[in-house]
Amino acid sequence: MTVSYSLEVANARFGGFSKLLFRWKGSIYRLLYKETLAFCGLYAFVSVFYRLLLAPRQQELFERVALYCDQFTNNNFIPVSFVLGFYVTLAFNRWWSQYMSFPLPDSLMMVVSGSVRGGDQRGRLLRRTLMRYANLSSVLILRSISTRVRKRFPSLEHMVDAGFMTAKDLEKLESLDSDFNKYWMPLAWFSQLAAQAREEGRVTSDVALKLLMEELNKYRAKCSLLFHYDWISIPLVYTQVVTVAVYSFFAFCLIGRQFLNPEKGYKDHKLDMYVPVFTLLQFFFYAGWLKVAELIINPFGEDDDDFETNQLIDRNIQVSMLAVDDMYQNLPPTVKDKHWG
Amino acid sequence: MTVSYSLEVANARFGGFSKLLFRWKGSIYRLLYKETLAFCGLYAFVSVFYRLLLAPRQQELFERVALYCDQFTNNNFIPVSFVLGFYVTLAFNRWWSQYMSFPLPDSLMMVVSGSVRGGDQRGRLLRRTLMRYANLSSVLILRSISTRVRKRFPSLEHMVDAGFMTAKDLEKLESLDSDFNKYWMPLAWFSQLAAQAREEGRVTSDVALKLLMEELNKYRAKCSLLFHYDWISIPLVYTQVVTVAVYSFFAFCLIGRQFLNPEKGYKDHKLDMYVPVFTLLQFFFYAGWLKVAELIINPFGEDDDDFETNQLIDRNIQVSMLAVDDMYQNLPPTVKDKHWG
Amino acid sequence: MTVSYSLEVANARFGGFSKLLFRWKGSIYRLLYKETLAFCGLYAFVSVFYRLLLAPRQQELFERVALYCDQFTNNNFIPVSFVLGFYVTLAFNRWWSQYMSFPLPDSLMMVVSGSVRGGDQRGRLLRRTLMRYANLSSVLILRSISTRVRKRFPSLEHMVDAGFMTAKDLEKLESLDSDFNKYWMPLAWFSQLAAQAREEGRVTSDVALKLLMEELNKYRAKCSLLFHYDWISIPLVYTQVVTVAVYSFFAFCLIGRQFLNPEKGYKDHKLDMYVPVFTLLQFFFYAGWLKVAELIINPFGEDDDDFETNQLIDRNIQVSMLAVDDMYQNLPPTVKDKHWG
Amino acid sequence: MTVSYSLEVANARFGGFSKLLFRWKGSIYRLLYKETLAFCGLYAFVSVFYRLLLAPRQQELFERVALYCDQFTNNNFIPVSFVLGFYVTLAFNRWWSQYMSFPLPDSLMMVVSGSVRGGDQRGRLLRRTLMRYANLSSVLILRSISTRVRKRFPSLEHMVDAGFMTAKDLEKLESLDSDFNKYWMPLAWFSQLAAQAREEGRVTSDVALKLLMEELNKYRAKCSLLFHYDWISIPLVYTQVVTVAVYSFFAFCLIGRQFLNPEKGYKDHKLDMYVPVFTLLQFFFYAGWLKVAELIINPFGEDDDDFETNQLIDRNIQVSMLAVDDMYQNLPPTVKDKHWG
Amino acid sequence: MTVSYSLEVANARFGGFSKLLFRWKGSIYRLLYKETLAFCGLYAFVSVFYRLLLAPRQQELFERVALYCDQFTNNNFIPVSFVLGFYVTLAFNRWWSQYMSFPLPDSLMMVVSGSVRGGDQRGRLLRRTLMRYANLSSVLILRSISTRVRKRFPSLEHMVDAGFMTAKDLEKLESLDSDFNKYWMPLAWFSQLAAQAREEGRVTSDVALKLLMEELNKYRAKCSLLFHYDWISIPLVYTQVVTVAVYSFFAFCLIGRQFLNPEKGYKDHKLDMYVPVFTLLQFFFYAGWLKVAELIINPFGEDDDDFETNQLIDRNIQVSMLAVDDMYQNLPPTVKDKHWG
Repeated sequence: MTVSYSLEVANARFGGFSKLLFRWKGSIYRLLYKETLAFCGLYAFVSVFYRLLLAPRQQELFERVALYCDQFTNNNFIPVSFVLGFYVTLAFNRWWSQYMSFPLPDSLMMVVSGSVRGGDQRGRLLRRTLMRYANLSSVLILRSISTRVRKRFPSLEHMVDAGFMTAKDLEKLESLDSDFNKYWMPLAWFSQLAAQAREEGRVTSDVALKLLMEELNKYRAKCSLLFHYDWISIPLVYTQVVTVAVYSFFAFCLIGRQFLNPEKGYKDHKLDMYVPVFTLLQFFFYAGWLKVAELIINPFGEDDDDFETNQLIDRNIQVSMLAVDDMYQNLPPTVKDKHWG
Repeated sequence: MTVSYSLEVANARFGGFSKLLFRWKGSIYRLLYKETLAFCGLYAFVSVFYRLLLAPRQQELFERVALYCDQFTNNNFIPVSFVLGFYVTLAFNRWWSQYMSFPLPDSLMMVVSGSVRGGDQRGRLLRRTLMRYANLSSVLILRSISTRVRKRFPSLEHMVDAGFMTAKDLEKLESLDSDFNKYWMPLAWFSQLAAQAREEGRVTSDVALKLLMEELNKYRAKCSLLFHYDWISIPLVYTQVVTVAVYSFFAFCLIGRQFLNPEKGYKDHKLDMYVPVFTLLQFFFYAGWLKVAELIINPFGEDDDDFETNQLIDRNIQVSMLAVDDMYQNLPPTVKDKHWG
Repeated sequence: MTVSYSLEVANARFGGFSKLLFRWKGSIYRLLYKETLAFCGLYAFVSVFYRLLLAPRQQELFERVALYCDQFTNNNFIPVSFVLGFYVTLAFNRWWSQYMSFPLPDSLMMVVSGSVRGGDQRGRLLRRTLMRYANLSSVLILRSISTRVRKRFPSLEHMVDAGFMTAKDLEKLESLDSDFNKYWMPLAWFSQLAAQAREEGRVTSDVALKLLMEELNKYRAKCSLLFHYDWISIPLVYTQVVTVAVYSFFAFCLIGRQFLNPEKGYKDHKLDMYVPVFTLLQFFFYAGWLKVAELIINPFGEDDDDFETNQLIDRNIQVSMLAVDDMYQNLPPTVKDKHWG
Repeated sequence: MTVSYSLEVANARFGGFSKLLFRWKGSIYRLLYKETLAFCGLYAFVSVFYRLLLAPRQQELFERVALYCDQFTNNNFIPVSFVLGFYVTLAFNRWWSQYMSFPLPDSLMMVVSGSVRGGDQRGRLLRRTLMRYANLSSVLILRSISTRVRKRFPSLEHMVDAGFMTAKDLEKLESLDSDFNKYWMPLAWFSQLAAQAREEGRVTSDVALKLLMEELNKYRAKCSLLFHYDWISIPLVYTQVVTVAVYSFFAFCLIGRQFLNPEKGYKDHKLDMYVPVFTLLQFFFYAGWLKVAELIINPFGEDDDDFETNQLIDRNIQVSMLAVDDMYQNLPPTVKDKHWG
Repeated sequence: MTVSYSLEVANARFGGFSKLLFRWKGSIYRLLYKETLAFCGLYAFVSVFYRLLLAPRQQELFERVALYCDQFTNNNFIPVSFVLGFYVTLAFNRWWSQYMSFPLPDSLMMVVSGSVRGGDQRGRLLRRTLMRYANLSSVLILRSISTRVRKRFPSLEHMVDAGFMTAKDLEKLESLDSDFNKYWMPLAWFSQLAAQAREEGRVTSDVALKLLMEELNKYRAKCSLLFHYDWISIPLVYTQVVTVAVYSFFAFCLIGRQFLNPEKGYKDHKLDMYVPVFTLLQFFFYAGWLKVAELIINPFGEDDDDFETNQLIDRNIQVSMLAVDDMYQNLPPTVKDKHWG
């Protein structure tokens, strides 16, 4: 479920974002607690190993290795923050563009409602079918990219049951032979049906037909964009480089950030606190930043903060039918407004 | 209230931005003074605690902890500035995009005024009603995202009173059954009414009707964008990661930046100034930067610098009615200009 | 006056940008010399104070404070460069967008010239008046945001004198009651006049009228954008945070960068050069970077490098009248070109 | 082959991106293993040379040189991470823009199918030929920029064989004399054929013809963009500067990161691990980041992660013919949908 | 000449970008070798001066100054890399936008060829003249911004000779009185001629005329953008700040990076290598990065990597005439394609 918090931060008040910290749903804690536990476990294991299981001589070797590793984790050898900053910014821009590519039928339904005339059954049939095709197309594409939609419609028959297509539609769809995603086919039907409606005179002018085709193409372009965003990810090598950077950083932290025996007087090792507070904060921070990337790199999954695709699908079909059928020539009386002068 | 200062910085003069520093309204001081007081209080508390309440041995332990914390706050363990830079840039771009999505009726009113003909009552009624629907739609969406507009119109009846809709409009609106935001409905009425005006011959050509529909869709798209910007915030996890980074930084500063007894000769602790000037500056700087994010992450709140939604609503309805009614076929005489050659 | 230097850097030659360093007009030296003098004066004052006026014991205290401050200015406590980088990039993008929003009548005049037919007086009158309205609108908006244009036209009467409107236009404009900026009104007249020209048959088709309306809306959108860029500045708090960061940095430099007595053997204080060359360079660099922000944050002022609004206004009206009047049906004979095969 | 991994990261789970690390195809390991081996070999060579082949006195000289070099590689003398961050971001944006410029015939085929009427042979011929021209054009441009497409169609005759053009088309194409890329010519034929179809009455209105021309121009613009992205690369000097920075960094690492004899007590040389773990990680990280740039700077090559141009070409022609021929006036029966109320 | 290297980096192979390093044309070496020689010369001069010409006591003073300067160049006092990163990114985005603004006649010629009918002499004359005007306009604007085009056409008469305009055109152009760039005038003729062609019935519909005007305005907008990119450079002060930062950095390197007498045991001065390898690398890197900015800040010069304006002008006129004349109603026979089913 999308996690909205705009309302809570409407005003910049005392404490500000602090109230956002005490949430569980969609929170960084929920996403990160398993990793944190794993990291703590490993750290504790190494700690116990060093303190209790090693012979003094082995301890000394361990200490030298630890100091060596520590140098690595402190000296910015690998600029984890830098590469994360750039990577997350890229991912964020893609994430928002993907949301902006979500096909909403609103423009199309306005145009269908205004251009395909006739309050009789044929008129209603035309308008409803056109909008059904548009919605069908978006559901087809969403089914192929969103795990949630896939779960809702495990097969095309489920879409027939849900009323997105008729059994005949499905038959026709399956009769067409193509190795590639067929999401665009209902939109080709839309185009044909609109042309037919023009011939029948239901679409009253060539200009109106052009408007229908233009809006159709904008709608289709968004479906197509979703498909391509899914197909062409951020290059795998980039993701790997970033992941290896973060993971190796914390792998070395497991050794380098151990509290060495304060009695031995190693530099910056004057205090044994058992719990490596700063390292845990760093873990929370860097691993959290990487989690942001994981979360937004595919917003069509089932994370708390992923897009509400199913809800949007429901909204789209409901609103489409309302606009082109129930609200057709059904508007309040046109009367003088209050400020009529 | 929006805080404009363009005029004051029109010229790059001596001192430049310095004159902007002495303002209270919409200023960083106003936003931050409570946090600063809280931070100072906590710092003073720790300071008193360390100086007066601890036994010498406890003091020594405290000093070791403080030195440890100080190392953390100085060594760039968590790149607060880095993550703030990226985060605020993201938030800023969203902020401006949200403002750019504010639906202004200007294009629509030009087209309505130029395309819906007739100076008689029916003509006036059509033009005024069309523009009223457009304004109604934007107020509906703003009511759901802006706390200021919500306060102005706590219920839909208040919008009837303000003349944005008639009682009949409200009735019709409520008779339509939809679980989702209904802001688009008046625009569907617009579309129907425009089609009707075309049939009546008030809109003189199909081309003019197309233009009306195109501008309608641009207007609707902006309303829709506002809705989606409100629904899909910057992912909560990102905001949490940034907030935790800043807050934990200053939590450790409370301990690590204490002035330790200069007599003990700790490195970089040669001077006891009581007031941690630099830490306060850092606090002002980093917490201020975070405040910028808090301010702009939801520009539809009631901060000094949030958008003037109510003022814009007033402007939009006034200007709409002026353009399509008062100014209809009411233009100055077309005479030769001064440079007629 | 806009400072163009494209030609001088057309080729990447030896020395490259170095020739740009020896300029006064529009240069950083001109913008910054006052601040630099002030900074030098203050530095000299502190220096004299420390060297000559303090008792040895006070000197020692001063030295400790200076060392403390120096630590602050060296250790990147406040990432001045970082925040300036982000801030100036934001400001730069706004600056260019503002320039791109400058309303140029070129598209409109092409369309008016091609769509409003008739070489007789009525035709000329229509075309000239349409373009005059367009130019009038942009001058109205520029008057409200540009100090230069405001100086040129201190009152609306000055615009009548300059021929941008007739006395009748002004009367009509003032008769319309609106609390908000009225820049859009001449464009509403444009829309009415175009519709009238269509009725008279001067605009030969509905398609041509649509084209006129579309270009009108693009033009109007640019005027509107200018207005909104002026109204909604970069949030004041951001500007304040950046300014405070830079100013406080140099305030501490005044103390921390003093040359301490080399005989006392403080670390990094082996040499007394009297003139703090590096600090001055830093000042030049950071204060210069901030000046860039000051310069571009409002490009409608009177700085050397601000936009040439008055020149553009002259160009626009001249070119508009040329295109729709002098050049109307006045084109060279259409003859075979040189490569006719 | 494009490497898609969206599905695997749909949900932000425990471990997250870690599962992406164990892949070979399209992975950073595959791209980088040769370089890594070469670097290891050189390092080993220098190591053996220092340890075994040098006289004690030469060793000492070597050690001083190594310490000098080490200082360079540690002290951020050249900000490799910084310049890589900016460069890769530029390259990434170009990479995605190039993908977005890939000409897809979907909009065009919708319009052709809806505007060019007639189910008879002439109608089919017109629609198929129009779409064939569009596809031909994109293949011509792709042949000139993609090594994969060039391999598939080594000569234009291969395109005749594949059915993208007829022998007559090829003849005509070659008869036209131009020194520049001829990819646009089939689109000029498209324009002519569409005008002809309008004259024959197959395109039923001028408005429909305009729509065809508009979509044609959008399609052509994408072909043109691909050509220009190929012609104008990121300036060579930028690529050289980045490459020299990375290469020289690792050249100095070969010497500076050698393990010096721990007995000599050089600072930070207390431990001889033989294998320079951190340097290898740095190599992996920085060379990997540069590899990302190499991969995406020309996405029309034959890397694992380059665009699937041949597959897209197949998809485009298949889908085009389906839409304008098989699906022409071939839509499922228009019946009442399930929710008909 | 534009330097294309896309093909060489089509695949990410072993060594990758390394093959780009061995190029002279358009390379960083060619751009930078003079500066490098100058820098080496100055460094050598200072070195000889210090080693041979100074008395021991003066040497000691020099050494203290050098150590002081070195501190400056090492400690990131001025963040050269940071400011270069931001500045070059800005310049790069402008550079690409300028290229994208290059007016290409392709869209226009498609539309002219499809909309202006008639294979007879009048038809040819109209189409050729329209396209000639379009090309003339772009050459006029390029002449005023590109040194290469200016050299090719030192006067307008040269453009008459080259066939871009007739002597009559030039006469008319000069008879029109305007203080501003006249590049838009041939486009006003285009508009008039198109309107005339509509009246003659050569342009068969108002819709086609609208299409012509729309494409004309897109073309004109690009010419206009080129003009404004040339007029409004990146603010001079920004360029100066960046240049001063880089130049002063290397000025201090001349002193601070001298090899001091190792016998005196200064820190980090244990080795006298005579040639300051790292400083030279830094010079290459930073000065190279600045050169990138110099190269791309005006891409209409005569650098190796500047845009091929003259070649593009030739291409545009040739292709325009081909499309609207030779290829007019000259398309291959429309026959069944290979896959006709």
